[in-house]
Amino acid sequence: MEGGNELNKNGKIYVVGIGPGDKKHMTFKAVEAIEKSDIVIGYKKYIELIEDMIDSKKIVSSQMKKEVERCEKTLEYAEDGKVVALVSSGDAGVYGMAGIMIEVLLKKNSTVDIEVIPGVSAANASAACVGAPIMHDFATISLSDLLTDWSLIEKRIHCAGEGDFVITIYNPRSKKRQEQIVISREILLNYKSKSTPVAIVRNAKREDEEIVLTDLEHMLDHNIDMFTTLIIGNSKSYIKGGKMVTPRGYRI
Amino acid sequence: MEGGNELNKNGKIYVVGIGPGDKKHMTFKAVEAIEKSDIVIGYKKYIELIEDMIDSKKIVSSQMKKEVERCEKTLEYAEDGKVVALVSSGDAGVYGMAGIMIEVLLKKNSTVDIEVIPGVSAANASAACVGAPIMHDFATISLSDLLTDWSLIEKRIHCAGEGDFVITIYNPRSKKRQEQIVISREILLNYKSKSTPVAIVRNAKREDEEIVLTDLEHMLDHNIDMFTTLIIGNSKSYIKGGKMVTPRGYRI
Repeated sequence: MEGGNELNKNGKIYVVGIGPGDKKHMTFKAVEAIEKSDIVIGYKKYIELIEDMIDSKKIVSSQMKKEVERCEKTLEYAEDGKVVALVSSGDAGVYGMAGIMIEVLLKKNSTVDIEVIPGVSAANASAACVGAPIMHDFATISLSDLLTDWSLIEKRIHCAGEGDFVITIYNPRSKKRQEQIVISREILLNYKSKSTPVAIVRNAKREDEEIVLTDLEHMLDHNIDMFTTLIIGNSKSYIKGGKMVTPRGYRI
Repeated sequence: MEGGNELNKNGKIYVVGIGPGDKKHMTFKAVEAIEKSDIVIGYKKYIELIEDMIDSKKIVSSQMKKEVERCEKTLEYAEDGKVVALVSSGDAGVYGMAGIMIEVLLKKNSTVDIEVIPGVSAANASAACVGAPIMHDFATISLSDLLTDWSLIEKRIHCAGEGDFVITIYNPRSKKRQEQIVISREILLNYKSKSTPVAIVRNAKREDEEIVLTDLEHMLDHNIDMFTTLIIGNSKSYIKGGKMVTPRGYRI
């Protein structure tokens, strides 16, 4: 990529899911996109995870909660002929930057080329840390009510409980959101037994990974924060030999 | 890895998710595990996708529907001191080999070391192909009733519909299972409007990838088979400019 003389001609946006954090869990395609890019944009905590693979001159890092602004900036660079990698942790298409970026593009009626590069999501990474808990039908629910009415989140928890789904919970708790996980557990106890296995995975596949295998009765006795993903089993899930497993139904 | 003189001592099992198919979407960790292994085992269609990166002497390929046997074989090699990579498409922990392998290990009371290496799942890969349809809470449901009672699958479809989840559907149809997707659509029409966006993604991220963007009313007019993943939107999902997006709720 050279310069940006012909507006819009060579610009491109890669929305790159970098996986759970450890570079080993990035895909070749994700690394290739970052290498090909003139500019790499992302929330600074995620940029830090991969900054040793990027020429520092290319990096534009951003604060949290500036997601739309970050996408607008990305589009500006791409419209100016630059190849830009917008990085997102996990899979960019799961509560990540892919949707916001496409919505910004559509709003501005931009025809700039965009490619979403999938990554290993937090649910998949956390599951691998503890065994095979999402081997059967599962529901993924974020407890963050910043952008979603809490009543809708509650309804989804009811439905996921009633359907005996394995449930992966994103954003279970933050400094300001303490009660959502408490209420969610209460709701689930209407459908799931107290002994339902629960995995609490903090910083999955990073250096400071922490794993707790517990159950619905005792899950709140453990540290749950914004770096945590929870996996709550279905009625067939079990914990044995330090692993959490949800059987698919094979005769073993 | 040298020999297997000390039983159980050096053997190890990697359960490796190889992603959607194109090697570019494998993680570095997945490739490293395959390279480190003395033996690579998998269903032959998946082995074919990666066989040019493996010394052919190491390969043990297997027929479909021999999943338990394949895991027993894997364990035998590992108990004999070998490092074995058991490969699975997508993410090994989502309807893949990870759960079966761990269950076989537990049944045999084996203490052999096992590591599940997460990959890009079919849901994440398919979503990336069409835009950002799983940006909000989603449910993943397999329509295969080989191992699961159809009544439970139906119930889950009802619950996912009622909860206004985005729904990713695995195994929507095979030669022998033709009606499940028809019934599923009927169920969903109780909860979702006919104009709900639907993405039909066949061979996601492979050379022969095929994408159809349609809606719940017209989805059955298109080719749906065992290589297809379906993504059915929630009430906020839309299709525009050739992309399917589910808004997270940001003000764009």
